[in-house]
Amino acid sequence: MNLKQYLHDKKTIIEASMEQYMLKGDSLLAGHIETMRYSLFAGGKRIRPILCIAAAETLGSHNNAILPVAMSLECIHTYSLIHDDLPAMDNDDLRRGKPTSHVKFGEAAAILAGDGLLTFSFDLLSAPTLTSQISAETQVKLIQVLAQSAGSLGMVGGQAIDIDSEGKEIDFDTLRTLHSCKTGALITASVQMGAILGNATPAEYKAFTNYGRHIGLAFQIVDDLLNVTATTEQLGKKAGSDAELDKATYPAFFGIEGTRTKARQAVDDAITCLEPFDHRCEPLRELAHYIYSRNK
Amino acid sequence: MNLKQYLHDKKTIIEASMEQYMLKGDSLLAGHIETMRYSLFAGGKRIRPILCIAAAETLGSHNNAILPVAMSLECIHTYSLIHDDLPAMDNDDLRRGKPTSHVKFGEAAAILAGDGLLTFSFDLLSAPTLTSQISAETQVKLIQVLAQSAGSLGMVGGQAIDIDSEGKEIDFDTLRTLHSCKTGALITASVQMGAILGNATPAEYKAFTNYGRHIGLAFQIVDDLLNVTATTEQLGKKAGSDAELDKATYPAFFGIEGTRTKARQAVDDAITCLEPFDHRCEPLRELAHYIYSRNK
Repeated sequence: MNLKQYLHDKKTIIEASMEQYMLKGDSLLAGHIETMRYSLFAGGKRIRPILCIAAAETLGSHNNAILPVAMSLECIHTYSLIHDDLPAMDNDDLRRGKPTSHVKFGEAAAILAGDGLLTFSFDLLSAPTLTSQISAETQVKLIQVLAQSAGSLGMVGGQAIDIDSEGKEIDFDTLRTLHSCKTGALITASVQMGAILGNATPAEYKAFTNYGRHIGLAFQIVDDLLNVTATTEQLGKKAGSDAELDKATYPAFFGIEGTRTKARQAVDDAITCLEPFDHRCEPLRELAHYIYSRNK
Repeated sequence: MNLKQYLHDKKTIIEASMEQYMLKGDSLLAGHIETMRYSLFAGGKRIRPILCIAAAETLGSHNNAILPVAMSLECIHTYSLIHDDLPAMDNDDLRRGKPTSHVKFGEAAAILAGDGLLTFSFDLLSAPTLTSQISAETQVKLIQVLAQSAGSLGMVGGQAIDIDSEGKEIDFDTLRTLHSCKTGALITASVQMGAILGNATPAEYKAFTNYGRHIGLAFQIVDDLLNVTATTEQLGKKAGSDAELDKATYPAFFGIEGTRTKARQAVDDAITCLEPFDHRCEPLRELAHYIYSRNK
């Protein structure tokens, strides 16, 4: 398959549906909604919604309900970037090659844009439009997976551990927990939510979950690597910031080559998890390779 | 009825269930969870969960599922206080007589505590424990009401309009929208969620909704009034801050006495909405009076 074309096609579909489902408000809210749109439509790779769709399609599901579900993942991801970039957090000025939300709109507006996007994710998943397409039981399952993965025992917790760990010596177990919460949880949830929409059996759900965990790990390892090896221009966000903030990372533990090997191993492990599935899992297999070889 | 006793009893039940349902994490997350607990257990009046329970009980419902549902409202309310108090927002040092979250734990931890509590609300409403007690359809309805009222067209949007309006001349229509979004939406949702759990008919739901809107308005008018007339010691948060931030308020439009009249009218309107209900709505009637006469 042509992964580049696949990514392009899915991104186009996802962004069109995001335009369709994005909330509209009256003129008093125009500024707030514009702040949310600025970050949401800043040209992300849309990896999480694509993973969600690819998982559902592996099971033969082509339900249009996938689109607002996929969008809910992108809203959560975008909110997390806005809040992580804040001066009190990672203090980043650049994201996807553009000024970060607080640089562009001020801190208060950025915090509220994040809060708005986070809440809107759950609005999307509980919306009457979705209720007409999938069962309420499925909606509740999707919401539970998203809330758990994005919350204090998942992504928010990972960021809290990350902030706590700055400038401290942390052991590898702590780094692993940090990564699996901060990045792994939402990536795993993306695959799980696609699996739920595809009516996965318990065994299939488990296989998807393990696949998600391995690519989540690979994703974070490669992120750590790119922070050291890539340029700011290439990344569209500040390179070298981990070292500057004295953050524990894979390269700090294993060096560049050792880290590459770990990432490669995580991708191989992910692909092994796809064995129960037929040829329709090919996009998931290619996505695992892509996560390893991406350069931004 | 003895409202003081009623408020005390409900608060005791709510706080005990909050202890029970509050999330637990491993030692790496201890700091983050402590930050959430600090604000959640800071001695709030628990008005929103009490309204939720009182609405359900007006319809004769005594389902224990009400407790995590009521808690979800308190989590959302608490997160909104933490984020509103941030230096970039209202920059308040004192809340409920204690240092605000960012003063106590730093800004990054406070932002994450807010994010964690917001997400946890939806975790509570989609949790398997709740699934065993109420239908998935009811869960989805509760989640939709909470997401809409707390989100960009509700509470978050109201705060965005508030921040946008600082130091600007705004007209009364804008102030009304601001109030109904920022404070009214979540108070209305509290009553609506109780009504949903009590299996309200459409006509009953409408009556509860109107009651909620009127007491939400009364609540915000009294808040504006107390900001002018009460002391910092009495409020447990900074008095006079609205004037300092040059915020549009009811007293700025109508003076102290005119504002009192408006609040009284809103309470009367709320009580009129309770006419379809039998004696079991008495707590809701007394709560409307309490919202008018409270002094903090």
